[in-house]
This record gives sequence, C-alpha cells and structure tokens, in this order.
Amino acid sequence: MGIKVSEVTKKFVRKTILKNVSFELEPNRIYGLLGRNGAGKSTLLNIMTDRIFPNDGVVTLNGVAIHEHDAQLGKIYLMSEVNLYQKRQRVAALFKASKLLYGGFNESYAKQLCEAFELNPKLRFGQLSTGYRTIFKLIMALCLPVDYVFLDEPILGLDANHRELFYKELLDSYSRHPRTFVISTHIIEEVANMLEHVFVLENGKILIDDDVDRMLSQAYVITGPGATVDAYTQGLNIIGTESLGNLKGNYIFGNLNDDREIPDTIQISRMDLQKLFIHLTSEGSTIK
Amino acid sequence: MGIKVSEVTKKFVRKTILKNVSFELEPNRIYGLLGRNGAGKSTLLNIMTDRIFPNDGVVTLNGVAIHEHDAQLGKIYLMSEVNLYQKRQRVAALFKASKLLYGGFNESYAKQLCEAFELNPKLRFGQLSTGYRTIFKLIMALCLPVDYVFLDEPILGLDANHRELFYKELLDSYSRHPRTFVISTHIIEEVANMLEHVFVLENGKILIDDDVDRMLSQAYVITGPGATVDAYTQGLNIIGTESLGNLKGNYIFGNLNDDREIPDTIQISRMDLQKLFIHLTSEGSTIK
Repeated sequence: MGIKVSEVTKKFVRKTILKNVSFELEPNRIYGLLGRNGAGKSTLLNIMTDRIFPNDGVVTLNGVAIHEHDAQLGKIYLMSEVNLYQKRQRVAALFKASKLLYGGFNESYAKQLCEAFELNPKLRFGQLSTGYRTIFKLIMALCLPVDYVFLDEPILGLDANHRELFYKELLDSYSRHPRTFVISTHIIEEVANMLEHVFVLENGKILIDDDVDRMLSQAYVITGPGATVDAYTQGLNIIGTESLGNLKGNYIFGNLNDDREIPDTIQISRMDLQKLFIHLTSEGSTIK
Repeated sequence: MGIKVSEVTKKFVRKTILKNVSFELEPNRIYGLLGRNGAGKSTLLNIMTDRIFPNDGVVTLNGVAIHEHDAQLGKIYLMSEVNLYQKRQRVAALFKASKLLYGGFNESYAKQLCEAFELNPKLRFGQLSTGYRTIFKLIMALCLPVDYVFLDEPILGLDANHRELFYKELLDSYSRHPRTFVISTHIIEEVANMLEHVFVLENGKILIDDDVDRMLSQAYVITGPGATVDAYTQGLNIIGTESLGNLKGNYIFGNLNDDREIPDTIQISRMDLQKLFIHLTSEGSTIK
C-alpha cells in the first residue's frame, strides 16, 4: 500500500536532476520534502503526478504504475507554483470543474475556507494576487477527495495570518479525514511540528529518509570555549560550526558518546529541524 | 536628520491605498515594516524612493524633499520584487553601472558575497532563477554606498541556508558600516531579533510605531482553564484568543495589572513578534 518511487532518474539536456531516487509514502502520514534550491524537489513531485516522465524508474500507487493510469492519478493532487488554471474562469467554476475531474469536491468546506480566507469565489482566477492564487490552490488541495496531497511551496505570497490559518486548517482537515500530505517548503521552522517523516533531497539524491523525532533526537549543539568544545566533539559527526569571539558552537548529528564526563564550561542543547537542515545541506557538510 | 514621511496619501482609481501616513526614520537603525497583504507597504516604499508619487504629503531626507532631487535619492536604495534590470546584461556589468549611478560600490565585498552565495557574476540577469535574482539584488543593496536601504520581501525564493547567510551578512555589514535598513517581510519570526523598531501598516494607516522591546514587553499569553483565564483577563486588552478543549489562551497587548494574585492554574508567558503581529492584524482585533 502507498506510493512507491523506484530508482527514478531524470535528465535534462545537460544535467541529471534526479539520480536513482527510491522511497515510499505510506497512507495517512504527513511528510516533509526538503532540499536546497535546485535540489530536484519540484521535478520529483512532477514525476510522481505524471506531469513529466522519468528517463528511468517507476512510480506506483498501491502496486499499480501511475503513468497514464487515470484511476491512480485521480487519487493524487499536486499543488504547485505553476498556474494551470484559465485566467478568465471564475473561482467557483474552477471548483466545479475539479469536482467533475476528481469525482468529488467538499463544497461546504470550500465555502467555509473561502470565507475564512476572504476569497471571493466570484472573482476570475486572473484577478487574484499571488497570495490569493496560493489560497485558491490550497482550498482545492484540501477539498478534493484524494488520498495523496502534494504541496510544493504552499505558502508563496501568504502573510503570517494566512499562513497560520492554513497550517491550522491542514491539521483540522487531516484529523477529520486522514490522508497523506507531502509538504515541500523553504520555511521549515513553521511546518516542523506537523511533519512526521522527512526526505532531504540533495543534488538529485535522497540524503535523509527518516522520522523527524528520530532525526531530532540525534541533533545537538555543543557550545562553550573553542578548545573545550573541539576536544569534547572530537570524533563525533560535526555537521557545522559557528564562532563568536572565543566561544564556539559545534553542530552534531549522531550519537554523543555520552559515557564521558561533560566539562562544566560546555552546554549541550537541541537543534530545531530548520537548523539541522541548514547544517546538513551546507557546503562542506561532512555527511555528503 | 533622517527621513520624514509627512501626511502621505495615495489613491488609485477606486481605492485609497495610504491614508495620511506620517512617521520618521532615524539614521543607523534597523526598522521592520510589517503589514498584511495589501496593507500598502510596497506603495509606501515606492513613494519613499520617488518611484510613484503621492496625491498628498511629502517625504524629506535631512529636511530636503526627495521628489526629483537626485542628491537625496542617491542616498536611498530600494530592493523590491520588481526586476528593473535588463535581462541581457551580465551581473558584473550591472554592478558596474550601479557604481556610476550611485557614485560608489564596494566591489571587494560584492566579490566576497558572490562567492559566499555561489552567484556567478558572468551570468546574465535573465538567466538567474527567482532565488538568484533575489541574491543579486541583496548584494546590490549591501554594497551600494547609501544611507538608507529598503528591503521589500528580501528573501523571496531563498532556501533556509541562503536566508541564514543573508541575515548574517546584513548584521555584519551593518556593524562595520552603520546605516538605516527598513525590512518588509512576511517571515517575521526570522528577522524579529534584528529589528529595533517596527511600523505596522494596516489598511493604509500606521497602526503601530514602536520599539520592538517595548512592544514585546507588553505582549502576553495567558493560558489555563477557560473560566479562570477569562476572569483573570477581564478588562485587559485582549487581542486574540485560542481554545483547546476546555483550555484557553488569551493574547494580551498592554499592561497586566499585576497587583492581583495570579491563580495557580494559569500560566503567563511571552508572545513573539510574529504571533503579536498576527493577533494585532487579524479580523476583529480590538486595537482597530
């Protein structure tokens, strides 16, 4: 059960965008798909919804290849930066058309969301600002009867109030009607609490495929006088370092080897997901 | 000294975007300009750089009106979403042209920033992705010899690593060469620590003009059983409320009236700037 991506490779003219990528999405979970700009996230999501085709590899949903299978594709919705909608069409008409296409649409919830976000469904798609086009697509994503919702940069152009409202609605909707979400965003800090499992894509490869709790349980910052910090962290997996005068912080991903005594002058604290991501994917990170 | 915005009003065909807006920017401070989508932030910054003209009111720099005064305008740089650069021009050539226009440009710092952000200065502007166009404009903003730098959505398309690098460089550059920055962004949480003073614009009016420390010193969340929280916060300036089962959180902006005894079952904690902003600018907020 679920979506299985098997050994997917995608090349554009000069460049290999995805290199032999494999992973699985289980039903009813919330995933994060993280990566630097240009890591291949959007290409991957487009392949997983059959909008573009891999040079190699296959994507299946419940064991059936999605490629050109409308029954499978009808269970997946990709919300992306690309605007696929006719500019002259009104919001309400686009909702209706999607209902036909996907065989269902939660109209009462859409009405409630339009009110909460103050989106007038009589407006034409072309009249909407960047923020409101995002809101329109988010409402679509939350109201269609699909099992897999992929959100590529879901908060583009949203102000802080609208972002908070969206995160709240996503969780409410998920708890009423569990399904799988994949959230790809650069504003990691704001979604970190929602994510159960994270994929980190780097240079077209899966760098991390792990549960968030497990990842964070191995992520530490050791701060204190430079020499003491270096001595204590020797041999550990240092993924980043920062200095402030003669103070130093070493970022560790992995076991701390905690049998040893901890020097009084150093402090051990936790890293949040965004900070961990930054250090895992920065130039010169040792995990590469 | 500084920039003075006096009674600025701006109307577009059907709508008044700015209504009698007045405030001052002092030299060498870091300001935040916050507001919901459509509040008038970009219009205001465009008026302050003479890109568009107000229907009423005036903007001065050190006592001299900026309108059509090149000497004044040469001391201000506005980095915005609008791309004013020729797509065929190479990054290096655009830096050189700006040097002529502004009478100076920190070329060695620009070179260092290009390396840090991995921006190839031989590329043409039109070849850059959204993220790299942003990076190009940020380098311009940090390297020009201006006294006032306005940054309108400075992190558009930047991944978490590039955002962190930009915040660090902004602070480094500011400490070496103090000048005034105005940062307008929706990702408030990430810039909150840098801001000394905040303007909140709402529906074309200045809602808040205050130091960040002072604002946050009056911003509390009172959580606990609903009835106890309501009783304790009665008469206080409640700007928002959240519920979770029979627990409740009331968001307060103002004095707590602390002579009273605090019930054991309630907790008082601080609000961060983004949360405060959300509650100040949400529908039905009592400060309006």
